[in-house]
Amino acid sequence: MSDRPEALKVTTGCLPGSRKVHVEGSRPDIRVAMREIDLEPSAKEPPVRVYDTSGPFTDPAVTVDITRGLAELRRAWVLERGDVEEYPGRPHRPEDDGLKPGETITVPVFDRQGRRPLRAKSGAAVSQLAYARRGIVTPEMEYVAIRENLRIAQAREAAARDGEDFGADIPDQVTPEFVRSEVARGRAIIPANINHPEAEPMIIGRNFLTKINANIGNSAVASSVSEEVEKMVWAIRWGADTVMDLSTGRHIHATREWILRNSPVPIGTVPIYQALEKVDGKAEDLTWEVFRDTLIEQCEQGVDYFTIHAGVRLATIPLTARRVTGIVSRGGSIMAKWCLAHHRENFLYTHFDDICEILRAYDVAFSLGDGLRPGSIADANDAAQFAELETLGELTHRAWKYDCQVIIEGPGHVPMHKIKANVDKQLKLCGEAPFYTLGPLVTDIAPGYDHITSAIGAAMIGWFGTAMLCYVTPKEHLGLPDKQDVREGVVTYKLAAHAADLAKGHPGAQLRDNALSKARFEFRWKDQFNLSLDPEKALAFHDQHLPAEGAKLAHFCSMCGPKFCSMKISQEVRDFAAEQGMAEMSEKFVKEGAEIYNTEPAQAQLAQPAAE
Amino acid sequence: MSDRPEALKVTTGCLPGSRKVHVEGSRPDIRVAMREIDLEPSAKEPPVRVYDTSGPFTDPAVTVDITRGLAELRRAWVLERGDVEEYPGRPHRPEDDGLKPGETITVPVFDRQGRRPLRAKSGAAVSQLAYARRGIVTPEMEYVAIRENLRIAQAREAAARDGEDFGADIPDQVTPEFVRSEVARGRAIIPANINHPEAEPMIIGRNFLTKINANIGNSAVASSVSEEVEKMVWAIRWGADTVMDLSTGRHIHATREWILRNSPVPIGTVPIYQALEKVDGKAEDLTWEVFRDTLIEQCEQGVDYFTIHAGVRLATIPLTARRVTGIVSRGGSIMAKWCLAHHRENFLYTHFDDICEILRAYDVAFSLGDGLRPGSIADANDAAQFAELETLGELTHRAWKYDCQVIIEGPGHVPMHKIKANVDKQLKLCGEAPFYTLGPLVTDIAPGYDHITSAIGAAMIGWFGTAMLCYVTPKEHLGLPDKQDVREGVVTYKLAAHAADLAKGHPGAQLRDNALSKARFEFRWKDQFNLSLDPEKALAFHDQHLPAEGAKLAHFCSMCGPKFCSMKISQEVRDFAAEQGMAEMSEKFVKEGAEIYNTEPAQAQLAQPAAE
Repeated sequence: MSDRPEALKVTTGCLPGSRKVHVEGSRPDIRVAMREIDLEPSAKEPPVRVYDTSGPFTDPAVTVDITRGLAELRRAWVLERGDVEEYPGRPHRPEDDGLKPGETITVPVFDRQGRRPLRAKSGAAVSQLAYARRGIVTPEMEYVAIRENLRIAQAREAAARDGEDFGADIPDQVTPEFVRSEVARGRAIIPANINHPEAEPMIIGRNFLTKINANIGNSAVASSVSEEVEKMVWAIRWGADTVMDLSTGRHIHATREWILRNSPVPIGTVPIYQALEKVDGKAEDLTWEVFRDTLIEQCEQGVDYFTIHAGVRLATIPLTARRVTGIVSRGGSIMAKWCLAHHRENFLYTHFDDICEILRAYDVAFSLGDGLRPGSIADANDAAQFAELETLGELTHRAWKYDCQVIIEGPGHVPMHKIKANVDKQLKLCGEAPFYTLGPLVTDIAPGYDHITSAIGAAMIGWFGTAMLCYVTPKEHLGLPDKQDVREGVVTYKLAAHAADLAKGHPGAQLRDNALSKARFEFRWKDQFNLSLDPEKALAFHDQHLPAEGAKLAHFCSMCGPKFCSMKISQEVRDFAAEQGMAEMSEKFVKEGAEIYNTEPAQAQLAQPAAE
Repeated sequence: MSDRPEALKVTTGCLPGSRKVHVEGSRPDIRVAMREIDLEPSAKEPPVRVYDTSGPFTDPAVTVDITRGLAELRRAWVLERGDVEEYPGRPHRPEDDGLKPGETITVPVFDRQGRRPLRAKSGAAVSQLAYARRGIVTPEMEYVAIRENLRIAQAREAAARDGEDFGADIPDQVTPEFVRSEVARGRAIIPANINHPEAEPMIIGRNFLTKINANIGNSAVASSVSEEVEKMVWAIRWGADTVMDLSTGRHIHATREWILRNSPVPIGTVPIYQALEKVDGKAEDLTWEVFRDTLIEQCEQGVDYFTIHAGVRLATIPLTARRVTGIVSRGGSIMAKWCLAHHRENFLYTHFDDICEILRAYDVAFSLGDGLRPGSIADANDAAQFAELETLGELTHRAWKYDCQVIIEGPGHVPMHKIKANVDKQLKLCGEAPFYTLGPLVTDIAPGYDHITSAIGAAMIGWFGTAMLCYVTPKEHLGLPDKQDVREGVVTYKLAAHAADLAKGHPGAQLRDNALSKARFEFRWKDQFNLSLDPEKALAFHDQHLPAEGAKLAHFCSMCGPKFCSMKISQEVRDFAAEQGMAEMSEKFVKEGAEIYNTEPAQAQLAQPAAE
């Protein structure tokens, strides 16, 4: 690898037709970033506000210099609470980057300019959950409330709620107090490590907008530092709410530092991956001491949530013996190997209280890993999976005793008819702690299209109550995703999450659909593109056959051509009908409709099955 | 356009690792084509049989010459029933191809070599429904039974049924008699125009495998004859069960002839498109006479099903006045315009019995069009849509009186929580006639990704009981799909249909998932690719990072690299555990599990919500 700092360029600039706006809260340093999409004047409509995860990279008012990192948005909030202290931190060691003693690092190192880590004073909990339980509404909570409300502010229709939320408790308007209460009861988390002050607060919980996570990370076979930073920037540009850095191999520490200092979204990791590197990849050589050291290393860097595979227990591992695909979680298989090699209980389980003590001092959230998730349709909802889920339920309640925030990871590969049982069981066993699932894929037979097989499951499980969806790219099962795969995966999951929000009846969620459809019907092509999740792709697809600028004013596209455009004819119908007072005819029909369609004989006729 | 016959090449040859096989029925001319995927010797498993829609184009034993067309598989079956006659047919006219009198056609014309059309003697019904009601099991029905059973023959697990079928009646084994009974009660159709003997029989009904349709067709802006034929061949190569030719503009008749003579799958059309061409695109100039003439023209050519927008009624059109996207069905908007222009009832409705008389004489099936389907989330499940559905229910029963086969078209754009109501209402109103839906798209905000927004809805609606899913390509709403879009759309819908079959619990459906997942777990990379819906894409994605042939034997891929491959570690775990008798440990755990997890105190602890 030979990244030089000057080569560390990332994508900046707003999406087409969009502006960055900020909504101020109760104090001037609460400025919630949103994106506004301007419509053509003929629309005679205000700009459409959309949730914006892209951070300062799309803000023309900010000059991005990734060698300096982003502004520390939250540092003052953390310090003013008076419960943290700066300290020297754990000394950095060559093995943090997979180097042998004496080897020097060959990638650029982020210059922290003397900044030292923060931690809670004398073992106190400095988590959003701890504050929420004490009745404190933090600036983070207020930020989140404003952020979640973006559509509601515009939605006069918010009163007309529509949806099936399966027992969720979605409010008409998100207040800071509602955020506090949801965090307090463990039904939502705000991942916010005190050492990641660059992050813009966001919330994960089933009474809020459905979130998505994108995984990035080098692997031993491909990738470099600058690619990883750009992947993060790229993923949030298209809408990733959090990013997991799943890097393995060398330069893990250095890469993660670049990502964290430049990430406006929470960053998650799987610390066992780095711990394994420190013992040269031999699972059986892992120890609690090495793992603990890695946790502290990452807590100090600012990782916001950790996947911890504490649910893979010695006694349940044999349940995977007859599976079609065994254990498919990397962390799960590592811990299973350790357990069997030593014939001892998983040290993540036996040291769970110790882990809680560490995480509460930095407000790192638990993402309790599903190490035994099914990796195939055949293994879905089996004894191994649900035995682990019961353990995760137990651990959730233990973590809550320490004021640690918790989310629960879920499958995986599940056929459609077995999806809902996952959510129901998870909500019950884990006290409604937010569910965070990978897909699930609803069939195994489409490698190359697993962003789609999984988006089907993701949309459904999101609707049923899953709070965050971990994306899957087209390369799943086949190889390491590149930039275009990340984009495809993120946009696919954004549409799945949005479909879930629509079905759950989130107030105002339908506003963007309505704006886009209205633009489509009125042949405002540019508005249609700009309102879409991927304006550049929509434009490119349109222009493939009709590249001329004039075609963007045309009342047809190349799909049907001018003569057969239903939208065009439909508008002619509407114009024609306007003269005849069609609206009145409509009302008349509705009034009479009951008589036309609900008469007894008609019903009887319709109900009669075809005679053989 | 300048297609010369020699330029009319199409894609041939089997998919990777596959062979064409034929399963013989009760007579030698019933030979049902299937595809067998061979596995690597190390699998120690028989080949996997899959449903094959690709026809003779993937049969190395057949030399395809599209200027001669395919063999007339069904002609003997049609003739031996003794109820049809050859006749001169309607004279071909220049306007059939959109030509002015005196203009000569500029595309190649298929040479029928003197073959004349068939029709029923003296107005009898020659439909599969007519035979079924009379208790006759036709060769078509037997063919279909063998075809649907392909997996069951292999599936010893077929006994272990798993799924939620929402009141469907899926048998353990499909017998010819079961096919007959389903056709007889109108719950399934076998689209099989007597003038399209080239087609391999297939069945559409909710107790059979979920089918998909691919739309092709030139539009005034793009495409040529040879492209259209190749699009059909291409669509069935990837798995389209039927193909709709939605051509508009010139050379409709000539193009359709090429497609029909070379199509092993049923072909559907929307005859009003061609009728409109015959009146120079002026909807108000349409007449019953022009439409009737077009129907007969297409019946004689061999079209297997017609979309007929007879449900767009004068009285219900005003219900669309306040919609966000009005009328988005092309046929629907054309008929709406006609109705309003004349202020008369839709002539397709008033002449419905006349249409039945025509269709029964050729066994062309009705696909009752949803001209008022919603074109946006805002318009889903509205009064216009459901008023039309009630009319379609009435028409279904009228068509059945004439022994016409019927399927019902459905939406469109529907949020997830409103999908099931569509199926429930359709099944009830239309006497369980098969439902055939376009998606539905579960959100409007992702143009460029609408194959995915719609596949989510398609998988769900298929699970709920929809018999056939009409595909949507990535270009939907933006432009005319090209070959790669067609492939992307078809494969996406195949996976959605298969996900539905899995969830419904079709016997043996899971076999392919199991085979693929087992191959994945055992690092049989080539088997994994070959068993997938798109082997070429899976291979290409894998080879992007690891092109060496040796990597196809490797126990890892570029996604995680060798050290972090969970499958590899999981196999090590399994090997390790084998020595320790893990299977026995598993059984022991399951026996003890009830005690470990179901004790009262544990349950009480888990049920307790987090204290605030």
